[in-house]
Amino acid sequence: MVESFFNPKSVALIGASHEPKKIGYVILENLVKDFKGKIYPINPKANDILNLKVFPSIKNVEDKIDVAIIATPANTVPSLLKECGEKGVKNIIIISGGFSEASEEGKKIEEECKKIIKEKKIRVIGPNCLGILDNFSKLNTLFLPSNILERPKEGNVSFISQSGSIASTIIDCFSEEGIGLARFVSYGNAIDVNECDLLDFFFNDEKTKVILFFLEGVRNGKRFIKIARKVSKKKPIIALKGGKTYSGIKAALSHTASLAGEYKIYSSIFKQVGIIEAENLEEMLDFAKAFSKQPLPRGKNVVIISAGGGLGVITSDECEKYELYLPEVDENIKSKLKEILPSYAIIKNPIDLTGNVTSETYLITLEECLKSNLFDGAILILLFQSPLTDNQQLLEELPIIIEKYKKPVLCCSPGGKSSKHFRKILEEKNIPTYDTPERAVRSFAAMVRYVNLNKLKPQKDKSHHPV
Amino acid sequence: MVESFFNPKSVALIGASHEPKKIGYVILENLVKDFKGKIYPINPKANDILNLKVFPSIKNVEDKIDVAIIATPANTVPSLLKECGEKGVKNIIIISGGFSEASEEGKKIEEECKKIIKEKKIRVIGPNCLGILDNFSKLNTLFLPSNILERPKEGNVSFISQSGSIASTIIDCFSEEGIGLARFVSYGNAIDVNECDLLDFFFNDEKTKVILFFLEGVRNGKRFIKIARKVSKKKPIIALKGGKTYSGIKAALSHTASLAGEYKIYSSIFKQVGIIEAENLEEMLDFAKAFSKQPLPRGKNVVIISAGGGLGVITSDECEKYELYLPEVDENIKSKLKEILPSYAIIKNPIDLTGNVTSETYLITLEECLKSNLFDGAILILLFQSPLTDNQQLLEELPIIIEKYKKPVLCCSPGGKSSKHFRKILEEKNIPTYDTPERAVRSFAAMVRYVNLNKLKPQKDKSHHPV
Repeated sequence: MVESFFNPKSVALIGASHEPKKIGYVILENLVKDFKGKIYPINPKANDILNLKVFPSIKNVEDKIDVAIIATPANTVPSLLKECGEKGVKNIIIISGGFSEASEEGKKIEEECKKIIKEKKIRVIGPNCLGILDNFSKLNTLFLPSNILERPKEGNVSFISQSGSIASTIIDCFSEEGIGLARFVSYGNAIDVNECDLLDFFFNDEKTKVILFFLEGVRNGKRFIKIARKVSKKKPIIALKGGKTYSGIKAALSHTASLAGEYKIYSSIFKQVGIIEAENLEEMLDFAKAFSKQPLPRGKNVVIISAGGGLGVITSDECEKYELYLPEVDENIKSKLKEILPSYAIIKNPIDLTGNVTSETYLITLEECLKSNLFDGAILILLFQSPLTDNQQLLEELPIIIEKYKKPVLCCSPGGKSSKHFRKILEEKNIPTYDTPERAVRSFAAMVRYVNLNKLKPQKDKSHHPV
Repeated sequence: MVESFFNPKSVALIGASHEPKKIGYVILENLVKDFKGKIYPINPKANDILNLKVFPSIKNVEDKIDVAIIATPANTVPSLLKECGEKGVKNIIIISGGFSEASEEGKKIEEECKKIIKEKKIRVIGPNCLGILDNFSKLNTLFLPSNILERPKEGNVSFISQSGSIASTIIDCFSEEGIGLARFVSYGNAIDVNECDLLDFFFNDEKTKVILFFLEGVRNGKRFIKIARKVSKKKPIIALKGGKTYSGIKAALSHTASLAGEYKIYSSIFKQVGIIEAENLEEMLDFAKAFSKQPLPRGKNVVIISAGGGLGVITSDECEKYELYLPEVDENIKSKLKEILPSYAIIKNPIDLTGNVTSETYLITLEECLKSNLFDGAILILLFQSPLTDNQQLLEELPIIIEKYKKPVLCCSPGGKSSKHFRKILEEKNIPTYDTPERAVRSFAAMVRYVNLNKLKPQKDKSHHPV
């Protein structure tokens, strides 16, 4: 049933407005810009908005409506839901806030809505949410102007979020971080459709490879455990839990009326079912980038290749902190690298190519290490600032080597404006590149954790690629 | 004595080169571009480089040389040091690597250098380092081209680093993060001048308000403790320790031949002497931004003002994790805010202004909270994406209010390209602005930690501004 929310042929917007700063206008404007199906604005007091004919009520629309979007004050919602039911609309997204999260009165309205949903056999996403941004059907119910909130390009990461503000800022970061979005749902108070329905939908969704999940509380623990376990075996779920502490739990109650519950219980359930927990927003994005762009590692044996000793040191520290293992480089690799590296280069693990690093020494060193069975992947610290490095050659040839060995390589290019420029180029070529080595290490460790928690075995082909 | 390294009237570069990719060329080019004193390139095999007359030996220069920079292979360094001594040069920066960090032979050369230093009574920074970048005298010995490594603008943050790669990438980030640099020293193997000499120099340096410090190991524990304690009472030292784990300690030994030692001992000494420890590179930059731009808090009572419930929830979680306290908003503030906020706004702590936030509601809410004795500062989460917010007004009036109450306000503007644009504008106005709320919270907590560790008392004037 939930599928039909994502690919409608016609939508109605109840609460369409002609005032450009109003939510009912912004949503309509986005729909007109992006959505390819039919659009029916509803407002008893308006005639035309954005060159579309406005209908006084959804009942006045003759066509079939696949999805109705409601963006009117909470107290008007129950009767509008009834009208939708009478019209035969089966899928409704309630954007409006002012329900159980806001007041006792809102709570009553929410209960009334639940009754109507049951009676009319309709499905509802929301209320108190942003709704859907689908990068394939181009359904977009977000009330955020596209000139301010950048729409991410098409990709394989989907995002389920109980919070609208977190979701919208995260997807706004996707473009900057070079991450592609498949579909996004902000489901707010979840009076009907909840995280379980959505996880189940993404389980089957061919466009989705990685699932991001922000939650404050789940409604039905048993069902959640069952579904999350099933999904995790097939696709990584990266979850960020809001309401981990006394202060956070109190805030969550005011936010989506969620009972955020004991965090330790959530955290251990995540582990049990194979969900990868992100500590914070940054990790959520960082992990998404790694899982979306690179193959999974066979194990936790990593080589660090760096062009600066100090960066190698802090990268090693972070690897050990996150339980990655740094095997010593063997004699075979050593003798090959000695031929090409200056005498003062350090051929251990980390390998320090020193400030005299060239694009060739980066490329040959990486290739020798990826060839070896010693390593399941690499953390590569690229200093595009080094004077002898031919950055153009490096940017061109690096993706070819990384692609060839089917082992995950996460890069770090620390620094300012020009490093940022190079990071973007690498990310367009599907190489996740972070601004500090610690972020790269934590993301690699998250991939190892996913493989271990879900007991995924490497496939028997040469790709070492369990998914 | 160490002062004289930072403000020379004349420098000699031993190992000047005419090959544009060589270190000896890049350093010379940077000197020519930035340095205002006299420059003497030294190379027995060259005549003219970059339109400067080249001398075969430092002894051939008739003028007094305040600082000599050596950038030749390790085995040539002892005899060059002698020549410098004979010439009467008192301050020498040895950029060259290949000493104790590289091999047994290098270790011997290093020992020889130490003897010469004693005999000739000269002071040496390095070897195996980047040397100095002084944003006031414009001395710049970094062998990194300025078109790739952006030079930060003048400011009040100084940086002492044992590692060149970390130092150079960090200062490359300064511009992007809106942080201003006073002076920077990369001191490498520290055969003479070490962290203690440099901390002592920055203690007295009027240009320096905040000291960043990357270290792998200190040479003289007792002296370090004494000096660090003295400095910390006057200026915050933000330290990142490399070599915290078995893997990191091994790597540090190969890097600067440092005995990185037991991390727990370092960590507890940092606490004892009032040094603020950064967990990683990102924290180092984040903390620098906060300390450099905002006054110190009187205490740990924080108000969170947000325009999104979910963001408020994760900010609360992070506050509790880092031991900040969120006092409830009192009736006085509540009644004032009720007048201006929509009925569904949540006036607790966090305060959720909701998606309908305007620039006025941001500004009035912040001002009411800063006025109150309940709060020592604020974490302000700005959603420039919100449709009703007049961003221009917000950017103009926010700095005025923040300046007025002399309490630290750290902002967060999560999101992509346009958020980044707004972050930059705020940072130019001395308001630290982070891309995730967690980074803002950790930075606020670092300021509280600094005040507590050093038992700093608020001044008695109205500013609540202990430094």
